[in-house]
Amino acid sequence: MNDEEDLVKRFFGNDVTDRDRAVFEAGIKLGAIYHQFMGVPLSKRNILTVEKAIEETVSCQPYVESARVKIKPPQDSNSRRYGYSEVSGRNLSVRLVVKYGHVRVFAGMEYVPELNYPLMFIEKLEEEAK
Amino acid sequence: MNDEEDLVKRFFGNDVTDRDRAVFEAGIKLGAIYHQFMGVPLSKRNILTVEKAIEETVSCQPYVESARVKIKPPQDSNSRRYGYSEVSGRNLSVRLVVKYGHVRVFAGMEYVPELNYPLMFIEKLEEEAK
Amino acid sequence: MNDEEDLVKRFFGNDVTDRDRAVFEAGIKLGAIYHQFMGVPLSKRNILTVEKAIEETVSCQPYVESARVKIKPPQDSNSRRYGYSEVSGRNLSVRLVVKYGHVRVFAGMEYVPELNYPLMFIEKLEEEAK
Amino acid sequence: MNDEEDLVKRFFGNDVTDRDRAVFEAGIKLGAIYHQFMGVPLSKRNILTVEKAIEETVSCQPYVESARVKIKPPQDSNSRRYGYSEVSGRNLSVRLVVKYGHVRVFAGMEYVPELNYPLMFIEKLEEEAK
Repeated sequence: MNDEEDLVKRFFGNDVTDRDRAVFEAGIKLGAIYHQFMGVPLSKRNILTVEKAIEETVSCQPYVESARVKIKPPQDSNSRRYGYSEVSGRNLSVRLVVKYGHVRVFAGMEYVPELNYPLMFIEKLEEEAK
Repeated sequence: MNDEEDLVKRFFGNDVTDRDRAVFEAGIKLGAIYHQFMGVPLSKRNILTVEKAIEETVSCQPYVESARVKIKPPQDSNSRRYGYSEVSGRNLSVRLVVKYGHVRVFAGMEYVPELNYPLMFIEKLEEEAK
Repeated sequence: MNDEEDLVKRFFGNDVTDRDRAVFEAGIKLGAIYHQFMGVPLSKRNILTVEKAIEETVSCQPYVESARVKIKPPQDSNSRRYGYSEVSGRNLSVRLVVKYGHVRVFAGMEYVPELNYPLMFIEKLEEEAK
Repeated sequence: MNDEEDLVKRFFGNDVTDRDRAVFEAGIKLGAIYHQFMGVPLSKRNILTVEKAIEETVSCQPYVESARVKIKPPQDSNSRRYGYSEVSGRNLSVRLVVKYGHVRVFAGMEYVPELNYPLMFIEKLEEEAK
């Protein structure tokens, strides 16, 4: 272990496992994505660029192995000027894979109409044999 | 278990434990705080209100038991107009308690000068006897 | 004029008037409020604190004389956990007064249902006799 | 004038000119960019995508003719994990052109070290002969 990780470990309780760390990091990334990108203006033309920007932005953070972002295209509007949309809990879908130590977490975010809520969840956990 | 939790559970893998859920929620809240409030203009006069707003804002989210936010006051500046500061990773300190099922997580965020990084961490986990 | 304003003036074209500066600053503040606070979690309990935090936050910025923020309370929800709301273009109403030189601008933001859009506008301009 | 613009005009005072509207819109866009994108994680690999996403995002908003965004690359860091940077007032440079009616505004944002402040400014105004 290098000095940097040594320093970081001092902030974590002794009973915190690799699995806890992996799950914690997945939560951080999802909370960050939602609250960072909510409100970004959206049109049919820029949607792919915004998806790619979020993916690359998440992927440069610690412990992220991969990220996949889909934004539901805004509906057609009669308004010429005010008809654009914005990134919100209703149109944002995320999947990401985080790895810490020997644990890999598959997590995501999806709008759930029945809850009227952008739910964040853990789909799967993989623990490699040590 | 009510229908709502039933629906939510379907998004989570079968091997996801209460401990995973609690840790995941703590991560979500910390990632959200940082990316939501970064950039909020800050003066010596509004600092207590901003701290309180962040605390109350976090506390109304699912599974949060309590939240404590401290913002390091901006330094005096010679500039009359442009001397105000803003919420950033360097001045924001958070502690929060999240509880899911029988597991309680004590987590936080602190700027670590040696890393030049606002580190998020888990200080302690408590599992109540079932 | 002090050195600071002297430096700032160099970035502005010669034909930029006090009226332009006042109107420009009003626009900056409204754009900032919307994109800074969108997504802040909202319950009936924290709504007054969030309103106050936005008001104080805007008021510490250059040239702002006063700010008034109203957030429409979230509707009752059947959901115990997921029933909270968040600051959005639909529930945020702002009025602010900006003064630059001898010009005072009364500006605001209001959700306009017919446009499905949070419109920002200038209600009034006052130019003091020099 | 169509119904939409008719409705919008009702929110603006009678003495508000096309020049005011153009300058106001330029301010809105700059305030929005700063407070929307502050805190976006940044590495050498994603910097071009983030610049492009901001440009396209601004360009889909009303009255924007063009936008140019440059982000100063983060410095090399010794830290393997925590060495990434984020969008901030110190590394973000913007130029945009807004047109309302017969008036075109050239505005921008630039970090000014002497002020330790990300200054927003109007470089030029062009009024077309009617």
